[in-house]
Amino acid sequence: MFAHNKRLQYTVRVAQSNPGLANLLLEQFGGPQGELAAACRYFTQAIAEDDPGRKDMLFDIATEELSHLEVIGSLVAMLNKGAKGELAEATMKEADLYRSLQGAGNDSHVTQILYGGGPALTNSGGQLWNAGYIDTIGDPSADLRSNVAAEARAKIIYERLINVTDDPGVKEALGFLMTREVAHMQSFEKALYSIEPNFPPGKLPGDPKFSNVYFNMSQGEGDLRGPWNNESTFEVISERDEQMAVDGGDGLPTVKLNKDELAAVQGMAARTASDLASDPETSADRGS
Amino acid sequence: MFAHNKRLQYTVRVAQSNPGLANLLLEQFGGPQGELAAACRYFTQAIAEDDPGRKDMLFDIATEELSHLEVIGSLVAMLNKGAKGELAEATMKEADLYRSLQGAGNDSHVTQILYGGGPALTNSGGQLWNAGYIDTIGDPSADLRSNVAAEARAKIIYERLINVTDDPGVKEALGFLMTREVAHMQSFEKALYSIEPNFPPGKLPGDPKFSNVYFNMSQGEGDLRGPWNNESTFEVISERDEQMAVDGGDGLPTVKLNKDELAAVQGMAARTASDLASDPETSADRGS
Amino acid sequence: MFAHNKRLQYTVRVAQSNPGLANLLLEQFGGPQGELAAACRYFTQAIAEDDPGRKDMLFDIATEELSHLEVIGSLVAMLNKGAKGELAEATMKEADLYRSLQGAGNDSHVTQILYGGGPALTNSGGQLWNAGYIDTIGDPSADLRSNVAAEARAKIIYERLINVTDDPGVKEALGFLMTREVAHMQSFEKALYSIEPNFPPGKLPGDPKFSNVYFNMSQGEGDLRGPWNNESTFEVISERDEQMAVDGGDGLPTVKLNKDELAAVQGMAARTASDLASDPETSADRGS
Amino acid sequence: MFAHNKRLQYTVRVAQSNPGLANLLLEQFGGPQGELAAACRYFTQAIAEDDPGRKDMLFDIATEELSHLEVIGSLVAMLNKGAKGELAEATMKEADLYRSLQGAGNDSHVTQILYGGGPALTNSGGQLWNAGYIDTIGDPSADLRSNVAAEARAKIIYERLINVTDDPGVKEALGFLMTREVAHMQSFEKALYSIEPNFPPGKLPGDPKFSNVYFNMSQGEGDLRGPWNNESTFEVISERDEQMAVDGGDGLPTVKLNKDELAAVQGMAARTASDLASDPETSADRGS
Amino acid sequence: MFAHNKRLQYTVRVAQSNPGLANLLLEQFGGPQGELAAACRYFTQAIAEDDPGRKDMLFDIATEELSHLEVIGSLVAMLNKGAKGELAEATMKEADLYRSLQGAGNDSHVTQILYGGGPALTNSGGQLWNAGYIDTIGDPSADLRSNVAAEARAKIIYERLINVTDDPGVKEALGFLMTREVAHMQSFEKALYSIEPNFPPGKLPGDPKFSNVYFNMSQGEGDLRGPWNNESTFEVISERDEQMAVDGGDGLPTVKLNKDELAAVQGMAARTASDLASDPETSADRGS
Amino acid sequence: MFAHNKRLQYTVRVAQSNPGLANLLLEQFGGPQGELAAACRYFTQAIAEDDPGRKDMLFDIATEELSHLEVIGSLVAMLNKGAKGELAEATMKEADLYRSLQGAGNDSHVTQILYGGGPALTNSGGQLWNAGYIDTIGDPSADLRSNVAAEARAKIIYERLINVTDDPGVKEALGFLMTREVAHMQSFEKALYSIEPNFPPGKLPGDPKFSNVYFNMSQGEGDLRGPWNNESTFEVISERDEQMAVDGGDGLPTVKLNKDELAAVQGMAARTASDLASDPETSADRGS
Repeated sequence: MFAHNKRLQYTVRVAQSNPGLANLLLEQFGGPQGELAAACRYFTQAIAEDDPGRKDMLFDIATEELSHLEVIGSLVAMLNKGAKGELAEATMKEADLYRSLQGAGNDSHVTQILYGGGPALTNSGGQLWNAGYIDTIGDPSADLRSNVAAEARAKIIYERLINVTDDPGVKEALGFLMTREVAHMQSFEKALYSIEPNFPPGKLPGDPKFSNVYFNMSQGEGDLRGPWNNESTFEVISERDEQMAVDGGDGLPTVKLNKDELAAVQGMAARTASDLASDPETSADRGS
Repeated sequence: MFAHNKRLQYTVRVAQSNPGLANLLLEQFGGPQGELAAACRYFTQAIAEDDPGRKDMLFDIATEELSHLEVIGSLVAMLNKGAKGELAEATMKEADLYRSLQGAGNDSHVTQILYGGGPALTNSGGQLWNAGYIDTIGDPSADLRSNVAAEARAKIIYERLINVTDDPGVKEALGFLMTREVAHMQSFEKALYSIEPNFPPGKLPGDPKFSNVYFNMSQGEGDLRGPWNNESTFEVISERDEQMAVDGGDGLPTVKLNKDELAAVQGMAARTASDLASDPETSADRGS
Repeated sequence: MFAHNKRLQYTVRVAQSNPGLANLLLEQFGGPQGELAAACRYFTQAIAEDDPGRKDMLFDIATEELSHLEVIGSLVAMLNKGAKGELAEATMKEADLYRSLQGAGNDSHVTQILYGGGPALTNSGGQLWNAGYIDTIGDPSADLRSNVAAEARAKIIYERLINVTDDPGVKEALGFLMTREVAHMQSFEKALYSIEPNFPPGKLPGDPKFSNVYFNMSQGEGDLRGPWNNESTFEVISERDEQMAVDGGDGLPTVKLNKDELAAVQGMAARTASDLASDPETSADRGS
Repeated sequence: MFAHNKRLQYTVRVAQSNPGLANLLLEQFGGPQGELAAACRYFTQAIAEDDPGRKDMLFDIATEELSHLEVIGSLVAMLNKGAKGELAEATMKEADLYRSLQGAGNDSHVTQILYGGGPALTNSGGQLWNAGYIDTIGDPSADLRSNVAAEARAKIIYERLINVTDDPGVKEALGFLMTREVAHMQSFEKALYSIEPNFPPGKLPGDPKFSNVYFNMSQGEGDLRGPWNNESTFEVISERDEQMAVDGGDGLPTVKLNKDELAAVQGMAARTASDLASDPETSADRGS
Repeated sequence: MFAHNKRLQYTVRVAQSNPGLANLLLEQFGGPQGELAAACRYFTQAIAEDDPGRKDMLFDIATEELSHLEVIGSLVAMLNKGAKGELAEATMKEADLYRSLQGAGNDSHVTQILYGGGPALTNSGGQLWNAGYIDTIGDPSADLRSNVAAEARAKIIYERLINVTDDPGVKEALGFLMTREVAHMQSFEKALYSIEPNFPPGKLPGDPKFSNVYFNMSQGEGDLRGPWNNESTFEVISERDEQMAVDGGDGLPTVKLNKDELAAVQGMAARTASDLASDPETSADRGS
Repeated sequence: MFAHNKRLQYTVRVAQSNPGLANLLLEQFGGPQGELAAACRYFTQAIAEDDPGRKDMLFDIATEELSHLEVIGSLVAMLNKGAKGELAEATMKEADLYRSLQGAGNDSHVTQILYGGGPALTNSGGQLWNAGYIDTIGDPSADLRSNVAAEARAKIIYERLINVTDDPGVKEALGFLMTREVAHMQSFEKALYSIEPNFPPGKLPGDPKFSNVYFNMSQGEGDLRGPWNNESTFEVISERDEQMAVDGGDGLPTVKLNKDELAAVQGMAARTASDLASDPETSADRGS
C-alpha cells in the first residue's frame, strides 16, 4: 500500500516563470525515459517477482520513482504558474502571450492551451505517454538488464536538460534526480550479478553452431574488427554465400499443404497472377 | 546501401498449416521484442554513430536483424498459406473456417480477415507496432546497454515460443534466431566494455551526497537486505523523515512570480476556490 | 513523497489458477477505466491544483488509486502464477498449455507469452495503455466533472467483472474496489458543488442567442421530446433552414487574401482543377 | 442516415491568413476535447442506446457536433489558404516561408508540409487523434456523466482559444461553438437527472463497510478537511495501520496452486533466485 | 451542415444474437479500412479542396460513408443486443456467458466487458482507431489515388466478412456496403482522370537520369522480368557497383562544420570512442 | 537475405549544420509517407506474395526503400552533427543553444534532447511512427493500388521539402529520392494493369442495383455534376427519400431475440429508462 506525505523528496525552488523550460522538462514527466515510465517498469516487475529480496528492491525503487515524478511535475507546475494565471485571467498582453506560448526555444502551447499549465503525460514534443515504453517481460535476468539500460538513458536525458537550464534551483533538483538514476543503476547491476548463472538469460542453451559466429553483413570502406568480433571469441563470416541458408538447406520457405488447401491456393494464384504466371519458368512457386 | 538475395538466412520448413501458431509468431515480427524493433534500433544508432568501429558493428547486426525479420515473416506466411487460399476462394467449410479463425489457442482472425494471411506489423495480440519500442538516445554507453537488454528480452520470447511449438522445422528456425540474440548480446557487451570509462554514462558526475544512498521506501514484512543495498556500497536510509526533503529544505515547491503574474494567479484562485479558501489556515498557498 | 508498505490495502485470496480471468482483470490494471488511469488523472491534477483543500483531496485519492493498482495487479499475478511457472519450466502438457493460453473465454497468451504472467499495462484486449485516457485540463470545475464521470465508468466495469467471476476471494476484492469508486465519486461531487459558481465552467459567458437553443438535427420516426429539450428550458429548432447559418450570414467560409497569396492560390487551382474548372459557373470559389 | 448541405451552421469569416492560429485551432478539430471526439462519443452511444428518447437526443447532438467539426475545419482551411497556395506554387520568399512555417507562437509546419494546409486529425501539437479519447462504455448513467464532463472540458478549451485570438470573425465563430457546448451540457445533465435512481451507476450496491469511508492517504502540512470528507458523510481514517488490509486479513496475496503448478513454480524460483534465496528468512514466498 | 434521419440507408435485419460476428464486423466500424476512416478521409479533403466540383463529390461521398458507419454500427448493436442485456442483468448462466464472451471463433469480450455491447471505435482485434489511418495530404492527384486504393481495400475486407457469415440479413447489408465501395472507386478514378496532367503528381519533374531506371536490388533464384521493369520503359541495373553512389560520388555522407562545431564533435568522439579510436586507420571519420 | 554496403545509394553532401531542416526531413524518415513506411509496406507484401514475378518486384523496391531510408537518415545526421557535439560537450553558448533548439522555423529539440541528434522514427512533428501507416491487406489488386497512391504521396512530400531548402547538396539528394518515387509508381501501375481482370478487386461482384448509382448526399449552393457522376456511367439520386432505406425496407435495425435475451433486455431497459419510458408512444423500441 502507498502512503503520501506532502513534503517532496527534494525541495523545488524556481527562480522565475519559464513555460518553455517547463515544456522541455515534460520529457522526464511523460517521456519514454521519464519517471512515470520508470515507476511503472519497476512496479509491474515488483508485483510479479517471486524472489522476496528482489521484490523488496523493486518496490523500494518504484516508490522512489513515483516520488521523483512528483518532483519533476512540481518543477513543471511552478515554471508554468505565472503564465497559467495570466492565460486563465486573460490579463496577459497579446505580445507576451505569444512569447509565452512560444517559450524559450520551443513550443509551450501544449501545456498552456491543452492542459492549462499543469504537467501533462506527454514528452516534450507533445507525444502521449504509452505503455510501449515499458519493456518488462517477467524474467529477472532480462528485466534487470532492461532496468540498468533504462537508468543509463534517464541519466543522459537529465544531463542534457541540465545543460540547457541556468535556473540554479532547477539545475539542483535535476542534479538530484540524475544522481539517483546512477544509484539505481548500481543496485540493478548488483542484483543481476547475484543471479547465477545470468547468461544467457532463460533456460534453453543456444545452438553452438551459431552462438559464437559473427556475420559480417555490412561491408565496404570502413569494415573493421573490434572487441565485438575479435578472433578469441568469434568466428567472422564475410563470404556472402556462407551467410545465406546457414543450415545447409536451399534457403527457401516451404509448407506442406493438404489437398484442399493446395487446390485453394492454386485457384487463388491463377486468379490474381500477373501475365508472367503462364511462363513455366516463373510458375514454380516454392511456397506451395 | 542494402542488397537482397532471395535465399533466406535460414531455411524455413513448415510441416503443416497452423494459423494459430502463425499468430503467436507475429510477436517476433511486429512485437516490441521482435526483429523489426531490433533492426530499427541498431540501424538508427548506426547512422548517427561517430565511431567507425561501432558504426560497422551496428550496421552488421542491423542488417542481420532485417534478414531475421524475413525468416520470421516467412514462417508466418507458410503457416497461414493454406487458410489464406481457402478464405480467398471461399472453399473452406464453415466449421473449419471458425476453427481456422480461432487457431490453436488464440485468435488468428487478425492475420486472416485484416491482413489476408500475410505477416502484419502487429504483436501477437494485434497491437500495431510503434516506434515507442525503440529506445535509441544517441549516447553509446547508454545505447549499448539498451541493446544488451533488448537481446536478452528477445532471447526469452524466442524461448517461450519454442516451448509452445512442436513443429520441428519451426522449432529449428526459432532456435537459430534465439541463438543469434545470444551472439549479438555478447558483441554489444564487449563493445560497451571497450569504452573507458563507461560508468556513469555521460559527462556529468553524480552528486556524491546521493550517489551511494539507498532509500528504503517500501517497508513492512519482507523488508530485506541484498547485494543491491549492502553496506559496503550503500548507506541505507529507512527513517521516513530522512527520506523527505533530503536537501534540507522544507520540501515544498515555490516559484518567484512577478507582479502581473501574482495578480493573475490570485484572481484565478479566488474564482475557482472551494469554500475553504476563505479559511486563513488553508489559504497560504505555498506555490505562489 | 510516497512511501510503501508491503501489506496490500485489501487482502488478495485467489482460489485457483485462472489465466483467462487474469486477462479480463487487466482491464482495470492497464485499461482506460483502470487504476493507473485513475491514479494519473488525480495525481496530475493534484500537482497543478492551487487550492490547498482540493490539492489534499486529490493527493489522498491518487494515492489510494495507486494502492488499488497494486491490489488488481496482485490479483492478476496470483491468477497467472501456476501457468507462469509451468510455461517457464516447460512442464505443462501441450494440451494443457493450449488450454491455458486460451484461458476461460478469452485469450490469455498476452500475459503469458509476452509478459511472462506479470500484470501488463494493457487492457483486457492487449491494447497498450496510453495517456489519451487522461482528460485532465487544469480547470477545477471541468476536471471534477471528469473525475465524477471516470469513477462512474470504473464502477460499471468492476460490476461487469464481478458478474463473470465466481472465485469468492476475487469477487470480494473486486467488490471492495468497486465500492471505493462510489465513495470517490461522492467526494468529487461534493468538491464540485463547493465551487460557486460552477456553471458554466470557466469565465466567459455563453452567447445568450444560442445557449438555450436545441437544434433538432435528427428527425424522422422516433423524434421525441424529453427533459433534455423541454420547453421550459429550450427553444427547439426543427426547420432545416433555420439550423443553417444561424448567424444570419450565407453560411460559406471566406478569407481575405493579400495580392501574392491570391495569385498563388489561383495558380494552384488552375493547375489541379478538374475539367469543370473552365466552366464559369463552377469557378466561383467562395473560399478565396 | 446523414444528409449534408453546403451551408455551414455558422458563417466563417477570416480576416487574414494566419497559419499559426490555424494550428492552434486544430486542437478542436483533431484534439481530445475536439468536435470529432464529441461526434464519435455521442454517435457510438446513440447507436447502442435502447431508450428511444435518449437515442434521439444523442443523434441530435452527434449530428450537430459533426456540423461543428465542419465549422472548425473551415476556419483552419481559410487561415491556411494563402500559405498553402504559396507553398504549392513555391512563390513565397524564403524568409516569409520560414515565418509561415513558424506561425505566430507555434509550429505550423505540421499543417503545411504534412497535410498541405488542410485540417488534419491531430491536436495542436501534431498528436494523431485516437479512439482512446472516447470513453463510451454503454451504461447511460455513466455515459451521460462522461458527456457532461466532456462538454465542460470543450467549453474551457474554446475559452482559451478565444483568449489568444483577435480576429473578430474567428472569435465570433469560436464563441458560437463554445456556447453550444454549454447548451449540450445542460441537455445531458437533464437527461441524467431523469434516470431514477442514477446513483450509484449500475445495479450492484457498494459494500456499506467502505462506501462512506475517506482514507486520508496524503498527510503532512496542508492536511485539510472539506466538503469532500466532512463528518456528516464520511468517516475519515488517518491511522496508517487502519488503512492497510482493511478486510482484517494479513494484506498479502495468495493463490492455491495444484501439485504440478507448485513444483513448476518452485523450480523456476530456484533457477532465478538471488543469493538470498538460500536464506530461510527470505524464502518464505507468501505468494505460493 | 449535416442533418440526420432516423431511417438507415439500408435496412438492418439480424437473424439471431452473435457477439462473435459482431466483433468481426467492428473491423469496418473502427478498423483501418472501415467507414469512419473513409468518412474522415473524404471529409478532411472536402474542407480543404479548392475545386468546387471535386469538393461537392467529396462531401457527397463523405456523407454517404457516415451513413454506412451507422449501418455497420447498427449491425454490431443488433448482434450484441441479447448478450448485452444478459450481462447487464446477470441472468446468463455462467457457461453461456463464457461462450458468449468467446463468441464464435474469436474474442467478443471487447465489446461486452469494455463497451457494454455497443459498437466501439476499434478494429476486430481491439486496436483503437487512430488518425494514422488517414493519408490525406492535400494534393488532389495524390489524394484521389489514395481514395481509389482505400475503396479497393474496403471492398476486399467486406468480401472476407461476407465469406465468414451465413446470416442472410447480415450478408445482404454487407453486400450493399461492398457494392458502394466499388461505385465510389469509379467516381474517384474518373475524377483523377479529369485532371490534366495527373502524372507525375505535383509540379516538379523527376530527374530524367533516374526516372526510368529499375534497380534490381533483389537477386538470386526467382529474379524475373515483368511489365514493371520491361525494356520498353525501364533500364534495369543489376550490377551491384552501379547501384551504389549513383550520382558518381563516393557514397559517403559529409557535412561542413564550423570551427566550434568541429572542436565539440572531436571532443565528444574522443570521450566515447571504442579502443579502436586510437588506430589511425579507423579514426578518419568521414562524417566530419 | 539482406546485405549492406557502406556506400550510400546517393552521396550526401551537406553545406552546413541546420537542425531545423534536419527536423523537417524526419518527415520522410519516420513519417507516414516516409521511407520506413515504404520499405515495410513492400516488404510485408513481398513475403506473402504468391506470384513469383510480383514477389521479385516487391523485394526489389522494398530493398531500395531501405537504402533510401539510409540516405534520408544520413542527411538528418549530418545536419545535426554540429549541434549534437556542442550539446554533448556543453560548449555552445546559451543563446546559440536556444537558436539551435528552435531551429529554422520549427522545433528541433526533439532530435536534440530526446534522441541526441540521431535520426528518430518520428515524423517532423515528433509523432512516433506506427504500423497504422501500413495498409497492406494481402490482395494484389488492392495492394498495388495502395502502392501507387503511397508513391504519389511521397512524391508530393519530397517536393514540399525541396521547396523549403536551399542547401544544394540536400536539394539534390531529395531530388533523387523524389524521382525514384515516380519510377516506382510506374512499376506498380504496370504490375496492376498486368492483372486481368483487376476491377473490381476480389472475387465477389457488386450488386448491380447499387454499383452505378451516385447518391447526391451533399446539396445546396455548389451542387455540381462532373466526370465522377455523369450520366453515361451513373444514375444520380438526389431525392432525400430515395436515398434512405434503399432496399425498400423501413430503414430500422432489428434482431430476433430468444426468450431469455428478450427478458434481460426488457429488464435492463426498465432499469435505466428515462422518464419517457412510461410513455407508450416512446416505448416501442424497434431494436428488440
